[in-house]
Amino acid sequence: MVEPRLIEELKGIVGEKNVLTSPEELLCYSYDSTVLQHLPEVVVLPKTTDEVAASVELANREKIPIVPRGAGTNLAGGTIPIQGGIVLSLTRMTQILEIDTVNVVAVVQPGVVTAKLQAEVAKKGLYYPPDPASLKVTTIGGNVGMNAGGPHALKYGVTSDYVMGLEVVLPSGAVIRTGGKAIKNVTGYNLTQLFVGSEGTLGVVTEIILRLIPQPRASGSVLAAFSDLDDAATLVNRILQAGVTPAVIEIMDHLTIQTVDDYLQTGLPRDAAALLLIQVDGVREAVEQELKIVAEMCQDAKATPIEVATTQDEEEALWKARRSISPSLTRVRPNKLGEDISVPREAIPEVIRRIQEISRQRDLPIVIFGHISDGNLHPNILFDQQDPEEVDRVEAAAADIFAASAAVGGTLSGEHGIGLLKKKYLSLDLPAETIEVMRSIKRALDPNNIMNPGKIFPQK
Amino acid sequence: MVEPRLIEELKGIVGEKNVLTSPEELLCYSYDSTVLQHLPEVVVLPKTTDEVAASVELANREKIPIVPRGAGTNLAGGTIPIQGGIVLSLTRMTQILEIDTVNVVAVVQPGVVTAKLQAEVAKKGLYYPPDPASLKVTTIGGNVGMNAGGPHALKYGVTSDYVMGLEVVLPSGAVIRTGGKAIKNVTGYNLTQLFVGSEGTLGVVTEIILRLIPQPRASGSVLAAFSDLDDAATLVNRILQAGVTPAVIEIMDHLTIQTVDDYLQTGLPRDAAALLLIQVDGVREAVEQELKIVAEMCQDAKATPIEVATTQDEEEALWKARRSISPSLTRVRPNKLGEDISVPREAIPEVIRRIQEISRQRDLPIVIFGHISDGNLHPNILFDQQDPEEVDRVEAAAADIFAASAAVGGTLSGEHGIGLLKKKYLSLDLPAETIEVMRSIKRALDPNNIMNPGKIFPQK
Repeated sequence: MVEPRLIEELKGIVGEKNVLTSPEELLCYSYDSTVLQHLPEVVVLPKTTDEVAASVELANREKIPIVPRGAGTNLAGGTIPIQGGIVLSLTRMTQILEIDTVNVVAVVQPGVVTAKLQAEVAKKGLYYPPDPASLKVTTIGGNVGMNAGGPHALKYGVTSDYVMGLEVVLPSGAVIRTGGKAIKNVTGYNLTQLFVGSEGTLGVVTEIILRLIPQPRASGSVLAAFSDLDDAATLVNRILQAGVTPAVIEIMDHLTIQTVDDYLQTGLPRDAAALLLIQVDGVREAVEQELKIVAEMCQDAKATPIEVATTQDEEEALWKARRSISPSLTRVRPNKLGEDISVPREAIPEVIRRIQEISRQRDLPIVIFGHISDGNLHPNILFDQQDPEEVDRVEAAAADIFAASAAVGGTLSGEHGIGLLKKKYLSLDLPAETIEVMRSIKRALDPNNIMNPGKIFPQK
Repeated sequence: MVEPRLIEELKGIVGEKNVLTSPEELLCYSYDSTVLQHLPEVVVLPKTTDEVAASVELANREKIPIVPRGAGTNLAGGTIPIQGGIVLSLTRMTQILEIDTVNVVAVVQPGVVTAKLQAEVAKKGLYYPPDPASLKVTTIGGNVGMNAGGPHALKYGVTSDYVMGLEVVLPSGAVIRTGGKAIKNVTGYNLTQLFVGSEGTLGVVTEIILRLIPQPRASGSVLAAFSDLDDAATLVNRILQAGVTPAVIEIMDHLTIQTVDDYLQTGLPRDAAALLLIQVDGVREAVEQELKIVAEMCQDAKATPIEVATTQDEEEALWKARRSISPSLTRVRPNKLGEDISVPREAIPEVIRRIQEISRQRDLPIVIFGHISDGNLHPNILFDQQDPEEVDRVEAAAADIFAASAAVGGTLSGEHGIGLLKKKYLSLDLPAETIEVMRSIKRALDPNNIMNPGKIFPQK
């Protein structure tokens, strides 16, 4: 319980106008991008690391839950203050502190919006590849907390691959630094990667050193339709085995194609079992050669039609279908539950077929699309939240999907995180001993269990 | 103290002939590739995970130190049984359990020699890039324990970039699995990367899932000599900023060039301040274009001579100088202390000049070479261990080098680890609070402090 004297103390730390307590303000911080919700008792908006440290120290002293939060775009209930207490919004810490073109790194505060960072580094010919779908609103701090991925993961990796160092406020209020600008670093344990993806349960990230790379100089895309799902999956393996690593390979299944075509009406191949969108990038000559290799391989794999785009306008047109998936879904049903399983690449056709079966068995439309080349699929279950019976079936279908992933050696979450939404399924994925090691680390760093409590781990 | 009854119990676990106790056998496991040494009380050579688990469980029950070890090539004193006890040699666990060409991963036991794995995956057109200099004898388990790097790190990363999952025997003897074959995985804390580079202080790695990549189809190299160190450093930045990421960029400083030329007598440019060796790889067309870009940039940077190699034989000839550094050094002085600082790339010329100054001040030859593109330098101090006064100066020079690295935001170790050799310098690199977080994790996982005790952390 956050008593009035503590509210006053928090106002002393961050200033009166940066402490929110009115019901309508608290409501704004009660949800994320899931359907879950819980009210905090107070929202604190610090501007500096010192203010974060003082706020966390207060929470620790008083044993009050404290939940760090960026833009709240996460899809796992990771930032919902499920036990009340303090929401610590990092959205005022928006400075890009440095874009260092010699060491090719950026140093940023957690509240920097991902697309803003990408735009700023692009002005210097540099590139920050992680591209979660929410990148126009999501923050780097949130991306670090959940280890956000995106379509570019196969070639370019996910958020964790770019985090070289952190400033972290520990649950005690102490401030530590991990890693640094040196590319290689084996001094002590890898705390940086322990904090990345820890969903705000081990500390509050207040500064991030990010590796950047040079902007690829050219790109090109191929769109190919397949009447057989296996042909599409086989093609992906053949491309990779040929030594071509596309920047992106996206798949859309039969129902996704039809849903998008109903929405766009641009004449997508409605009868196809799967559509692949493949983008290569790099130096111009390599792009041209790789596009040729990929198009030929599509032909060998009996894809039809095959479209190749080499200019920016042509690429825009090809990618319109992929970008239209999300808006098209709400025309089918008002709500969706977007899942995020990640499986070994070879299991993709088997898992897609299994999910299509679940769709029939549970009598729910499930569109399947995602990042086929890295095995990360987003089956989206479409439903109406006003219909409680349908909601029950959604719950059952989601459990079926997790089980299907676990059955082929896959994981619960490729890039969305566990949060509240998947914690009850954690033991499907991880053995009890592994979970216990994670819990022991949580206890060692946060003995009072104040940092984002109730997340990741199932109740004992 | 390992009592006779425990020796008998260990024989019961791994078989009589896999428990070594004779003085001459113990001596073989008393050292690594540093000059440090300490005898174990017993050496145990398990063949299976169950045997490892039973051995560790015994050590934990009896509170006896246990030190996991591969080929003992590490350069930090990481595998020296400084408190006696048990050395657990993983060199009998040599199976490559699986090379999965669809998911492009290998599953191996810790005793597999790195070069052996590279050769086996190459037969299937695949590539395991981490290439520590000792790769012909070093084991994957040792590479994971120390997070070994190598010249290919800039483009291809270090060991940790390839470890997707582990089987680990915890200090309690419990066996856990982390990660898996799925490329993206954000389920729970990143335990995989916590164990990688933890130098055997948190558990014993008994199985490793490694990411592989397709073999690059072609490569080519450029050798360029510079009369000014800054020109060489600037060139590296220009190449990277131009969007070309070479597989390798190695630097040799003035003294290294002279030492190698004395040895090889092949007419290296003895007056040059620095020699750069640059290798690019990829598809043939891209390699040709990138070689052209690099050679032109060398010309613009006033390098002379510039040699370009496009065939394998030509490349071999160019790289002979680099590969001859180690053998050439013993002709100067009988002993060497190879350091391993890693600094932000822009600080390279400053740090090289500072180390040359230290060499003069301490009156010791220090050859400087290493992986300039990722900021990882190996200053090798050449000396005679029979001369105690000279050994004192080596110690002082090493401390000077660490301080020089710390002064520019660098780290103590880029790829060799901390072990015994650098633990007293840990607080030069990490603040007390950061070290305390690491210690708290060590205590949480290994409350009896049996796993490779006395390493990484300075005595309190």
